[in-house]
Amino acid sequence: MTDDRRPDNRRLRVALLGAGSVGSQVAALLLQHSEELADRAGAELELVGVAVRDLDAPRDTDIPRELLTTDAGPLIVGSDIVIELMGGIEPARTSLLQALNAGADVVTGNKALLATHGPELFDAADQVGASVHYEAAVAGAIPIIRPLRDSLAGDRVRRILAIVNGTTNYILDRMDGEGAEYADVLADAQRLGYAEADPTADVEGFDAAQKAAILASLAFHTTVPLDAVHREGISSIDRQMMEAARHAGYVIKLLAVCERLQDGDGESISVRVHPALVRRDHPLASVRGANNAVFVQAEAAGDLMFYGAGAGGIQTASAVLGDVVSAARRHIAGGVGVGESTRANLPIAPVGRAVTRYQITLEVDDRPGVLATIAGILADGRVSIATVEQTIIGADPSTRPGTDTAESAVPRARLVIGTHKAREQDLAETVDRLGSSDVVERVVSVLRVEGD
Amino acid sequence: MTDDRRPDNRRLRVALLGAGSVGSQVAALLLQHSEELADRAGAELELVGVAVRDLDAPRDTDIPRELLTTDAGPLIVGSDIVIELMGGIEPARTSLLQALNAGADVVTGNKALLATHGPELFDAADQVGASVHYEAAVAGAIPIIRPLRDSLAGDRVRRILAIVNGTTNYILDRMDGEGAEYADVLADAQRLGYAEADPTADVEGFDAAQKAAILASLAFHTTVPLDAVHREGISSIDRQMMEAARHAGYVIKLLAVCERLQDGDGESISVRVHPALVRRDHPLASVRGANNAVFVQAEAAGDLMFYGAGAGGIQTASAVLGDVVSAARRHIAGGVGVGESTRANLPIAPVGRAVTRYQITLEVDDRPGVLATIAGILADGRVSIATVEQTIIGADPSTRPGTDTAESAVPRARLVIGTHKAREQDLAETVDRLGSSDVVERVVSVLRVEGD
Repeated sequence: MTDDRRPDNRRLRVALLGAGSVGSQVAALLLQHSEELADRAGAELELVGVAVRDLDAPRDTDIPRELLTTDAGPLIVGSDIVIELMGGIEPARTSLLQALNAGADVVTGNKALLATHGPELFDAADQVGASVHYEAAVAGAIPIIRPLRDSLAGDRVRRILAIVNGTTNYILDRMDGEGAEYADVLADAQRLGYAEADPTADVEGFDAAQKAAILASLAFHTTVPLDAVHREGISSIDRQMMEAARHAGYVIKLLAVCERLQDGDGESISVRVHPALVRRDHPLASVRGANNAVFVQAEAAGDLMFYGAGAGGIQTASAVLGDVVSAARRHIAGGVGVGESTRANLPIAPVGRAVTRYQITLEVDDRPGVLATIAGILADGRVSIATVEQTIIGADPSTRPGTDTAESAVPRARLVIGTHKAREQDLAETVDRLGSSDVVERVVSVLRVEGD
Repeated sequence: MTDDRRPDNRRLRVALLGAGSVGSQVAALLLQHSEELADRAGAELELVGVAVRDLDAPRDTDIPRELLTTDAGPLIVGSDIVIELMGGIEPARTSLLQALNAGADVVTGNKALLATHGPELFDAADQVGASVHYEAAVAGAIPIIRPLRDSLAGDRVRRILAIVNGTTNYILDRMDGEGAEYADVLADAQRLGYAEADPTADVEGFDAAQKAAILASLAFHTTVPLDAVHREGISSIDRQMMEAARHAGYVIKLLAVCERLQDGDGESISVRVHPALVRRDHPLASVRGANNAVFVQAEAAGDLMFYGAGAGGIQTASAVLGDVVSAARRHIAGGVGVGESTRANLPIAPVGRAVTRYQITLEVDDRPGVLATIAGILADGRVSIATVEQTIIGADPSTRPGTDTAESAVPRARLVIGTHKAREQDLAETVDRLGSSDVVERVVSVLRVEGD
């Protein structure tokens, strides 16, 4: 390599929008590592300004005062590369469209924006031959966008199972390790900064659903609207479910599942976020704490897994800077950017068409004929039983509030039924019928089993 | 996305050199998935010919007879993209230089060629603004070249610990799981096709050393000649060492280690391949069978791991096709290719300067004062002791051949010494002194501990 790839006059103007925990780290790295970045990018990357809402807000790193501005407009128009780390839809969307229309390449870590307005951004980039880079939007520092878009471009992805939310993995991992209750671990996570004061976006799966939409769009070359992603959170997971999972050789993880379906209605894709039982010897089971991992099954490549820190200012800044270098190389190389190919545009199946295995836990009266009745309900619902485990749990009245002692003296059993693969819709209808059956006291839980 | 990205006249000519287990799968995928590949690449990829040594050799997939040729020259000159899967240095090197000089972008999975002539190829590509893609050369289907080159381009890699040879991982994993002897598992691996009739390239670490040179070159932006890679194989690992490792909470893996060193002589890099003790809760410990994994520690991104199948015709073909799509996009975009940036060119330290922890296993006479003597030798050698575990192993004469019964009646003990971090050279000298000490019967093993 010689110096002639970077003539002295080669200099790219970089604007940064937003200086929160990721943005302030990006600014610091751009300033501190300018020499190395120039070597990698083939051009000096000059940070020309940082747009912020409040000039005097405290920041994680020092940014020279003269770089700060509250007026993003002029910054955007004069730049070759625009990095957007503001989050939220507006003004991020308008700023990025403005940047693309002015011929800049853009880098963003904004999952909410990509999950809702991705196609609009990609189209705008195509119009002018610019590029949109967003490695930081999914799974923090873990390179997953490039592997899906480039490395697997000649392969066909069958399924992605991904742990893409660090907060929920932290909570579930601690519940699993300590036998603790959800509410206690959540409170602790909030105190330690792993969960926000309002944890809804994380624990109810909204954050993971945005990332699932982005991953599925890329993996299946299909526009996946956020509202097509089926979403369930972890707030219903309790200590007993965790213990039962452990007993059966599983761990409960909040998974983003993106997979191809092939059924009577043709080929489609299923995109969903929900807690799932994962076997303890599956690579995803060993993802601890707030880490993320993306497990990809491809037709030719087989099983791949990408693992690392899913969040954190400095970690995510690494992904942003990788994108900045890519954007710089593209800007220098000229030619057209690589847009998002959504030519496949497979239909997105409603969750009822998803096919998976289930573990159904029931409390039933321990009487002759109960199992036969339950097996009959499952068979009628086209849900085939793979395993049944029955535990006598006695006639403890405390587990059956509001009933008198005479009634609760009927001995009861807990049935854990593992099914073969079944359609979600058949399963849901069957569970409804089980719930209203005379012999079933209570449907304790229904969990999907993924990764088998 | 509209069709105008791929006008009907957009067609790239692709030549394939070599049709072994990977090449024949690449040919099949190019022919079978032409429509999807065209969507991804933005151009039709026309396989114009496959150069082979023997037109009639049996192949894993059917390649139409009219595509086969024994004359690579004309094929290379007329092509936009040349895929080289012949292996070996010549004629692969000459063919790729010819292709680059003719303006083609090239894709290769040839680790031997890259590890020995990489800089020559990259320079040739730079001269004409073409690109060299080689994701398939390291860790089969696992995307690792792009993450290192692009995703981490704005970060600084501190260390790579990689399992990059499937054969040795398969052997060590079975020895660990079954308590089997090396020779038995190797013979079985040969019968099952996991190891070659002459297993030297795998079991003595030559294959892993080539991959280590490629990974280190990329991670540290430095030309790493193959002969600068320190190399030890696994043929000295026996059942007892495996069991002792297990007992101490470790597993033995053959690792490629690429790391930055900072010592009195300034910054340098260490690149080495050797068996190492890895803690059982380390992500690398769970890499089973013939799989590969690359564990990367970066300054900002933290710990990342990339996991998957390290070999196999169809799996490696996935990596090749990803590269073909990238090469096609670059060819269409025009501009200059992204070359290899080796501007850092850090010095490569001799293995004696490497710093790591060690586990030294000794057989010693069980007499008062022995431990003090040994501790003294270690202290003199600047090797600091972290842990000592002593096991009385009795005075079994069978473990001490050639000695008479009177002598072997001296009770003996096994000492397992874990050291703090020490310099390889200090350690080697210390082990020599231990070996010639009166109180040491035998140095059973010395193993590095990595990944702590």
